Amino acid sequence: MRLYVASEEDILSGNATDIYFKRTVEVVKKSGKDKKVRMEFHAYSLPKGYEWGVFAGLEEALYVLRGRDVTVYSLPEGTLFFRKEPIMVIEGKYSEFGELETALLGIIRHSTSIATKAARIKLAAGDKKVLFFGLRALHPAIQPVADRAAFIGGVDGVAGALSEKFLGLKPQGTMPHALIVIFGDEESAWKAFDEALPEEVPRIALVDTFCDERESALKAARVLKEKLKGVRLDTPSSRRGNMRAIVEEVKWTLRLHGLEVPIIVSGGLDEEKVEELRDLVDAFGVGTSIAFPPSVDVSADIVEVLEGDKWVPRSKRGKLPGFKQLFRDRCFKDEVLPWGSEGKGTPLLTKVMEGGEVVTKLPKITEIRDYVLRQLEELKTCR
Amino acid sequence: MRLYVASEEDILSGNATDIYFKRTVEVVKKSGKDKKVRMEFHAYSLPKGYEWGVFAGLEEALYVLRGRDVTVYSLPEGTLFFRKEPIMVIEGKYSEFGELETALLGIIRHSTSIATKAARIKLAAGDKKVLFFGLRALHPAIQPVADRAAFIGGVDGVAGALSEKFLGLKPQGTMPHALIVIFGDEESAWKAFDEALPEEVPRIALVDTFCDERESALKAARVLKEKLKGVRLDTPSSRRGNMRAIVEEVKWTLRLHGLEVPIIVSGGLDEEKVEELRDLVDAFGVGTSIAFPPSVDVSADIVEVLEGDKWVPRSKRGKLPGFKQLFRDRCFKDEVLPWGSEGKGTPLLTKVMEGGEVVTKLPKITEIRDYVLRQLEELKTCR
Ligand SMILES: O=C(O)c1ccc[n+]([C@@H]2O[C@H](COP(=O)([O-])O)[C@@H](O)[C@H]2O)c1
Ligand SMILES: O=C(O)c1ccc[n+]([C@@H]2O[C@H](COP(=O)([O-])O)[C@@H](O)[C@H]2O)c1
Repeated sequence: MRLYVASEEDILSGNATDIYFKRTVEVVKKSGKDKKVRMEFHAYSLPKGYEWGVFAGLEEALYVLRGRDVTVYSLPEGTLFFRKEPIMVIEGKYSEFGELETALLGIIRHSTSIATKAARIKLAAGDKKVLFFGLRALHPAIQPVADRAAFIGGVDGVAGALSEKFLGLKPQGTMPHALIVIFGDEESAWKAFDEALPEEVPRIALVDTFCDERESALKAARVLKEKLKGVRLDTPSSRRGNMRAIVEEVKWTLRLHGLEVPIIVSGGLDEEKVEELRDLVDAFGVGTSIAFPPSVDVSADIVEVLEGDKWVPRSKRGKLPGFKQLFRDRCFKDEVLPWGSEGKGTPLLTKVMEGGEVVTKLPKITEIRDYVLRQLEELKTCR
Repeated sequence: MRLYVASEEDILSGNATDIYFKRTVEVVKKSGKDKKVRMEFHAYSLPKGYEWGVFAGLEEALYVLRGRDVTVYSLPEGTLFFRKEPIMVIEGKYSEFGELETALLGIIRHSTSIATKAARIKLAAGDKKVLFFGLRALHPAIQPVADRAAFIGGVDGVAGALSEKFLGLKPQGTMPHALIVIFGDEESAWKAFDEALPEEVPRIALVDTFCDERESALKAARVLKEKLKGVRLDTPSSRRGNMRAIVEEVKWTLRLHGLEVPIIVSGGLDEEKVEELRDLVDAFGVGTSIAFPPSVDVSADIVEVLEGDKWVPRSKRGKLPGFKQLFRDRCFKDEVLPWGSEGKGTPLLTKVMEGGEVVTKLPKITEIRDYVLRQLEELKTCR
């Protein structure tokens, strides 16, 4: 009996790998072919309906590469990327990092997939808040990974208790159905919540447990008065004939009684549903669709090999050979050119690691998120 | 700089949780409402096109619950379940396990989602082999979790090097494009692979790196002769006009030269593509579609509360109240009845933990997989 979680030592040592990479390192070493290579990370296709991805996971990737004799070029974490664009390039002897490919891809893919979906939802929510509620969809070992990626992608708050310690983010939350079911009636549960918890915990009443949302919202407003900071509608799917109509009715009824209470909707939300409701709702609680999104299939390919003292562009069929730079002009006018070329716009790949040491200042998580949000703004104004 | 992975201590202590569960425990304790409850785990809906799920993650869940004063009823790990069926029930004072809900759901959801997809692919593959190649899609911390779940779901082999230590499974693999790109030509790479590695590593030549699969497969057969145990076609998507035609042509050409070489196809495979190719192919390498499948949304709800000395059925709207048993007759004729009822068929929920101690013999991973395969067989013969 145990948890089947790889340790940090398993990961850093290169043991968290597909076995064929271990064999490959053995083969190249034994046959004297342990050459310097340049390996490019990129996504040659994106999930259906996606035009871009949000690059996330760089800090963890560099942590895994630290101490290996490699040079790394990379987009800043949080950069929006498009199909076929170079995201990161590792340069070094194959044996220095070949075994890490599985772990590095895993780190980048998992975080990028979550961050990208979070950004899509944030974009759909317009100026309304998005809270990430998806930890229950994921193995608990990666809770901080997921909260970090979702936050980078642009959500306004995360629910994981660990995120305070790991990410310096104050976790946010409302109340679960469990609380109300234990009490047996909504009113006593809300009151007990209000009495037991310190003031800084916002009183957001869950209003769909036993009764209809309209009546319960009104009751919550009467019970908690001005302390009520919101009502959460997590309406079960069998009752979701028309969620818009339910929210409209709740708001109408509250207003009829002179009450203005923020509305939080959660449960089963994705981009479309968020967009559908955003004019009515103040905040969205989004879980599974962000935590378990379509996979953004980043892959890694050798694109150059050092032969003697000359870098020779070489790759498998289907991938563009050669070391490349990505230039970005206003409004995401992008150009991928052979390294060393002059391009229009800003060259986005910069050296972030040399000889196994980080040579750039890694931004804070809030800075990465701000960077993502600025890019999402640019997307909106440019399209 | 660090990995954002929660420690075992974070998970077992209940700190790997949504903050609102911590608050709920505080509220029920402070207000003297820390009652005994029964919490049921179930999936009220399944991903599009799914009829059933494969329950996985039980061992880890019990490990997390160990030492808490709870009784647990559960289906055996590996049991196929349908919509709305009880999978697991935890009985105990809310404060004993309330904070663990996020972690328990995460464990069960993640493993169940992977195991279910693996079983669907295995079913699609008929009597052909399926190797799980998806670790690169996932954060490396959960590599053994994923290999375990995929194996339980029915794949014939896993590629993770850690799986030997964690699961007692010998990892399997072929060779990556990196090897061939470093050598610069396929022939030298295959030869070096053959010379460098011990005999027990099967010689499976990758035949799509620089040349067309047909010519390369022939070349591999000539170079490695009877040592060749297979050719792998990981044809890039831009070359996949018609994968069936490519495989047919490779096989035809090999046969024309008196050669019979097993064909392994990998890259971008899902249920449909596997089914399309299974008559032609000997083994499939399936990665992302198993590792990053649609989420099987298991949720947990209190269904009974102990009031005084009487268990009172109670749940939120949208969930069936009451403690239940699942009876299964031949061919998955299932019946969910209130606990204590007489049903047709075998009652599938049994007590697996009492007072925080496991009271059942946990099966070996190979036994769980066999159990899944037997059920998949039954599915096939009954439908
Ligand atoms: O309200 C909270 O603080 C909260 C924190 C974490 C999770 N949730 C729950 O998470 C669920 C998210 O739903 P879904 O379908 O997007 O995964 C939703 O049912 C919420 O009740 C809710
Ligand atoms: O051949 C192997 O031993 C092997 C082990 C692990 C992973 N792979 C690679 O994993 C990829 C799986 O593809 P996909 O699209 O199903 O994620 C495929 O491109 C294989 O080359 C291959």
